[in-house]
Amino acid sequence: MADGPQEANAEYYAAFEAGDLDRMGDVWADGAFADGVSCVHPGWPMLRGRDEVLRSWALIMANTTYIQFVLTDTTCDVYGDHAIVTCKENTLTADEEDSGGTGFLAGGSIVATNVFVRTDGRWRLLVHHGSPILGTPEDE
Amino acid sequence: MADGPQEANAEYYAAFEAGDLDRMGDVWADGAFADGVSCVHPGWPMLRGRDEVLRSWALIMANTTYIQFVLTDTTCDVYGDHAIVTCKENTLTADEEDSGGTGFLAGGSIVATNVFVRTDGRWRLLVHHGSPILGTPEDE
Repeated sequence: MADGPQEANAEYYAAFEAGDLDRMGDVWADGAFADGVSCVHPGWPMLRGRDEVLRSWALIMANTTYIQFVLTDTTCDVYGDHAIVTCKENTLTADEEDSGGTGFLAGGSIVATNVFVRTDGRWRLLVHHGSPILGTPEDE
Repeated sequence: MADGPQEANAEYYAAFEAGDLDRMGDVWADGAFADGVSCVHPGWPMLRGRDEVLRSWALIMANTTYIQFVLTDTTCDVYGDHAIVTCKENTLTADEEDSGGTGFLAGGSIVATNVFVRTDGRWRLLVHHGSPILGTPEDE
């Protein structure tokens, strides 16, 4: 596979959009890197280790009826077998709980730092840290 | 210098506590890594590049009368010349604006992902991503 870190980054969001836990599991690093996996969902505490991270995805996917991402401001820096991708996640979601079953759509902006590692020729996600943009004096 | 990434991580918070912009500038990666520097302060958008990041620190330090960190849950994974440090920042702050000049102290919890790069034998900060813990079902 000739896919680079940007394609791996796109696959991460595609797996979330598809609500496909197997696909999401394939995105995240495994084997020797499993213990080093970490993930911060927006507003959440730090989750550590592949198992804990994938459990969170099972929970999130079970509670997300619809989510769509438009990524902007994506940057990608490759350092040997590691790559750091940053982007802004512009989301459109429908959440049963939030909408009271009306299918109400909500938008939001999240900034994300994603660290990928190349292992067995594939780029896999080692670190995801997403956080809400709450507004700052430097907000553009 | 035999300092490892954990010592570099501690120096980052010490520089912030000291309100010392020169020291903070020394913590962050420079030279070939300057453009790859990125920083997300809690609730802020993504800042990219050493210059933009250090400008934000000048602003933050000018508006912080007192801050103290107690780091917990620190982990450190080294991958060659890169290292990923995660920690929980338990902060105690006094902010003129928030306190109305009364010196009121506020506490808070932030989760941070810090990526360090070893260059010229020193570990320097390449990525900082901090985000507020807003409370989740998995909150411990």
